[in-house]
Amino acid sequence: MLSNDEECGMTTIKGGYPGGYPGQGQGGYPGGQQGGYGYPGQQPQPGYGAPGGYPPPSGYAPPPASVPGVSPETQRLFTMVDRDRSGKISSDELKTALVNGNGENFSDVACKLMIGMFNRDKTGMVDIHEFEKLYNYINQWLNIFKTYDRDSSGHIDESELTQALGQMGFRFSPNFIKFLVTKCDARSHKNVSVDQFIVLCIQIQRFTEAFRMRDSQQTGTITINFEDFLTVALDCST
Amino acid sequence: MLSNDEECGMTTIKGGYPGGYPGQGQGGYPGGQQGGYGYPGQQPQPGYGAPGGYPPPSGYAPPPASVPGVSPETQRLFTMVDRDRSGKISSDELKTALVNGNGENFSDVACKLMIGMFNRDKTGMVDIHEFEKLYNYINQWLNIFKTYDRDSSGHIDESELTQALGQMGFRFSPNFIKFLVTKCDARSHKNVSVDQFIVLCIQIQRFTEAFRMRDSQQTGTITINFEDFLTVALDCST
Repeated sequence: MLSNDEECGMTTIKGGYPGGYPGQGQGGYPGGQQGGYGYPGQQPQPGYGAPGGYPPPSGYAPPPASVPGVSPETQRLFTMVDRDRSGKISSDELKTALVNGNGENFSDVACKLMIGMFNRDKTGMVDIHEFEKLYNYINQWLNIFKTYDRDSSGHIDESELTQALGQMGFRFSPNFIKFLVTKCDARSHKNVSVDQFIVLCIQIQRFTEAFRMRDSQQTGTITINFEDFLTVALDCST
Repeated sequence: MLSNDEECGMTTIKGGYPGGYPGQGQGGYPGGQQGGYGYPGQQPQPGYGAPGGYPPPSGYAPPPASVPGVSPETQRLFTMVDRDRSGKISSDELKTALVNGNGENFSDVACKLMIGMFNRDKTGMVDIHEFEKLYNYINQWLNIFKTYDRDSSGHIDESELTQALGQMGFRFSPNFIKFLVTKCDARSHKNVSVDQFIVLCIQIQRFTEAFRMRDSQQTGTITINFEDFLTVALDCST
């Protein structure tokens, strides 16, 4: 099951991230108001490539019907996660299958955000083809997270988050990184779990894309009116 | 139970909204780039005043211990909602107690957002004093919603949402209202439920406040750098 370390959870995912981030090392806004902080020259986006590679799940799921163009591994996983046998996977079903480093299921926000990225008909559920893409997508994020979670604690801290975002081409100020960590860990201000990391990266990507579209001169500063500001803020937020 | 129309749900809430929105009728940005669309002169905020008035819940809850400074009604409700008897109410417990006009429980986003507004120690749970404020807050939103849901369908449409936001002092373009409704109802683009309405209003209030702080000349347009933009966007989003 995706959620279980003993079976194929976070600590046993095989395979590396295929190709690295496209925006890596491109710098950002040298002329920006924040003394060189800024976003990368190209939008970081994990590609939908080869899966990171969950090992085959344990065998309690019934053999799924063969779906043309979908790997047997995806079919097995889909059948396991699709608990109500509806042929679609909901956010709640996905949540049940995913566990972060605290032993907690992924947050509702993370699952809804990811389902929302792949369900084309806006039903809030993914079919098997959409699930295959989603599964690859999650694997890629897990691999990235593992790269920076060097002690395999299931969390990354301020320094590791700085490195992870830096690898994506973002050069943020220490205060901004502190703000991100505090947003994720309101109590102790220390740790970011994998599902929080995924939500954070997706949100940053979306807001960066929206900002970049309005920053035609790439100055790192935009002028924006109230309604456009609200549209961006609400459209990109969860 | 808060969630049940027969007992004291949305259709049976008594009492009106005490005092109206403070920003009502103040106009917005006449000189803004959007032809007069804009935000009100003062931030709309339902005050934490007299409760809208749920009728007393049915009597299956055990009599709660008396808490000084908390009304017996709040104590009874708190005991009913606090299912695990922890002395705190979580987002999940709140969700179980609240039902929207579709017969669905309030969304996780709505419950977490509201809990987050009142839990001072950032545990994600409210104690009885915080619950009393939260309960009044929800009642006030429900009363506002009912005012515009004239056919008591449990939804408001584009026109009703325009009126509701107009009453709060916001003059948005028809396209922006359409965007809001589509955000809430991705499939049919028609209806906004009460929990979606609450989330929308809270988010709009937060983003408006952040925008206003940066719009010292009240021109309806701001200039903002990348990191500040991200801070606002992430800080105000759920």
